[in-house]
Amino acid sequence: MPTVDPIAIYEQMMKEDHFSQWLGVKLIKISAGYCQLQMTVRSDMLNGFGILHGGVSFSFADSAFAFASNSHGRLSVSQQASMTYAKPAKAGDVLIAEATQLNLGNKTATFDVKVYQKHTQETIAFFRGSVYRTSKEIGPY
Amino acid sequence: MPTVDPIAIYEQMMKEDHFSQWLGVKLIKISAGYCQLQMTVRSDMLNGFGILHGGVSFSFADSAFAFASNSHGRLSVSQQASMTYAKPAKAGDVLIAEATQLNLGNKTATFDVKVYQKHTQETIAFFRGSVYRTSKEIGPY
Amino acid sequence: MPTVDPIAIYEQMMKEDHFSQWLGVKLIKISAGYCQLQMTVRSDMLNGFGILHGGVSFSFADSAFAFASNSHGRLSVSQQASMTYAKPAKAGDVLIAEATQLNLGNKTATFDVKVYQKHTQETIAFFRGSVYRTSKEIGPY
Amino acid sequence: MPTVDPIAIYEQMMKEDHFSQWLGVKLIKISAGYCQLQMTVRSDMLNGFGILHGGVSFSFADSAFAFASNSHGRLSVSQQASMTYAKPAKAGDVLIAEATQLNLGNKTATFDVKVYQKHTQETIAFFRGSVYRTSKEIGPY
Repeated sequence: MPTVDPIAIYEQMMKEDHFSQWLGVKLIKISAGYCQLQMTVRSDMLNGFGILHGGVSFSFADSAFAFASNSHGRLSVSQQASMTYAKPAKAGDVLIAEATQLNLGNKTATFDVKVYQKHTQETIAFFRGSVYRTSKEIGPY
Repeated sequence: MPTVDPIAIYEQMMKEDHFSQWLGVKLIKISAGYCQLQMTVRSDMLNGFGILHGGVSFSFADSAFAFASNSHGRLSVSQQASMTYAKPAKAGDVLIAEATQLNLGNKTATFDVKVYQKHTQETIAFFRGSVYRTSKEIGPY
Repeated sequence: MPTVDPIAIYEQMMKEDHFSQWLGVKLIKISAGYCQLQMTVRSDMLNGFGILHGGVSFSFADSAFAFASNSHGRLSVSQQASMTYAKPAKAGDVLIAEATQLNLGNKTATFDVKVYQKHTQETIAFFRGSVYRTSKEIGPY
Repeated sequence: MPTVDPIAIYEQMMKEDHFSQWLGVKLIKISAGYCQLQMTVRSDMLNGFGILHGGVSFSFADSAFAFASNSHGRLSVSQQASMTYAKPAKAGDVLIAEATQLNLGNKTATFDVKVYQKHTQETIAFFRGSVYRTSKEIGPY
């Protein structure tokens, strides 16, 4: 049985993940059930009020969620996710998305993702999402 | 008192909404508390499994939600939103996001957004979001 | 293969469902993927502000969700649910919970439940929940 | 200006909170933005599958959320809440609900509530809720 390698899974997923590439996400840390990403807010990510579009902060959290939930080596499909907004972000802000595992069942799993300002540590949004864990392996590696 | 014009509000918001422009959203219909948008899935919107990134379908719904909730002429700030995924979408799919108002209070309001395939009418995701309604007017128009 | 009978499933579940009995829920209508219940708000269901406790309106919706999701004859386990409150309810109010199916997949399904005043039709809360559908049959009937 | 006393607020709310009394909640600890409650699962709280009804675990979390969000001395009204279920609970289980503040704004605030087994520390559900903070004081004390 091949050992599951979260970094190799991340790299294989990321190679084809065109939207996470557009976001400019950069891996900080990954391990089984955990992922930390970084990105910098650009002006083409802003909404009509001149602040970061809520869909972009959600997407950033959603990418961290996808890498964390697939890190166990079983293809995991997002079923449901929610986002609570705390503070706006603006162009130039450097953000961290940190995904942690709340619960890992055989068929489903749930993760929290905190999106925060790298420099001030202020949280801008709280994401929570659940996946269905298929029996299909990702890999082999 | 100037009459509130949802189309003028949409146009003013959209002019500065760089991320909705990147999504390629096109207005189908807007009225007080209602918005229908269209977009076409592109390859740069896909995730590592070759299907539409969940953050992009959320963003599309979130834009319809923002236009619908601001259509009453009071600046409305997203507080919380959730997304339930039903079916994947792929490059080339033409999608509709239809935002309808569930509840309009003085300080808060809630909207449902259904994201569906234009041609088959199949729903791909169900979004629900709440805003805080500030006392600040959008406009004048 | 025995035919699945949503009413028989409801009756078998309800016979042992002590908390739904405490709520005083009464079946109005049930069919595959659909359930409508009625209950009357009592004074022992109120919170510290003298209005219906949010947990009771959630519970009422959750019971309709459970009956609707199990009506297909496969044991279905709640994974996640959310509640958006629109208006308060008070002692003596007669409420309806109407559960409708948004999406039925092989492994998961999602339902909306609207809780509203029977007499005025005013909605008091919007519930949305997802189940994991086990392969275990309920019944046979 | 009178000092806000979270314990006095709890006691005043709880005195009239008939449903939290029915649940049998007992205060373990309360402070500004924080509340920890205990309750014991009874047989009249079970659902049709013989386990704790999801509405009861939600209600227990919701009560902790209400006490924590009102502890600042401003009347706070629940707008939205979600529940993710991790493990079932059964009659006799002693449960803790611990509400912590994620974000405190001027008009809104968000709380997480973890519901877990007192003896094994196993989490049974994760609750997240948001309130609208009115300008009305609770008290005076």
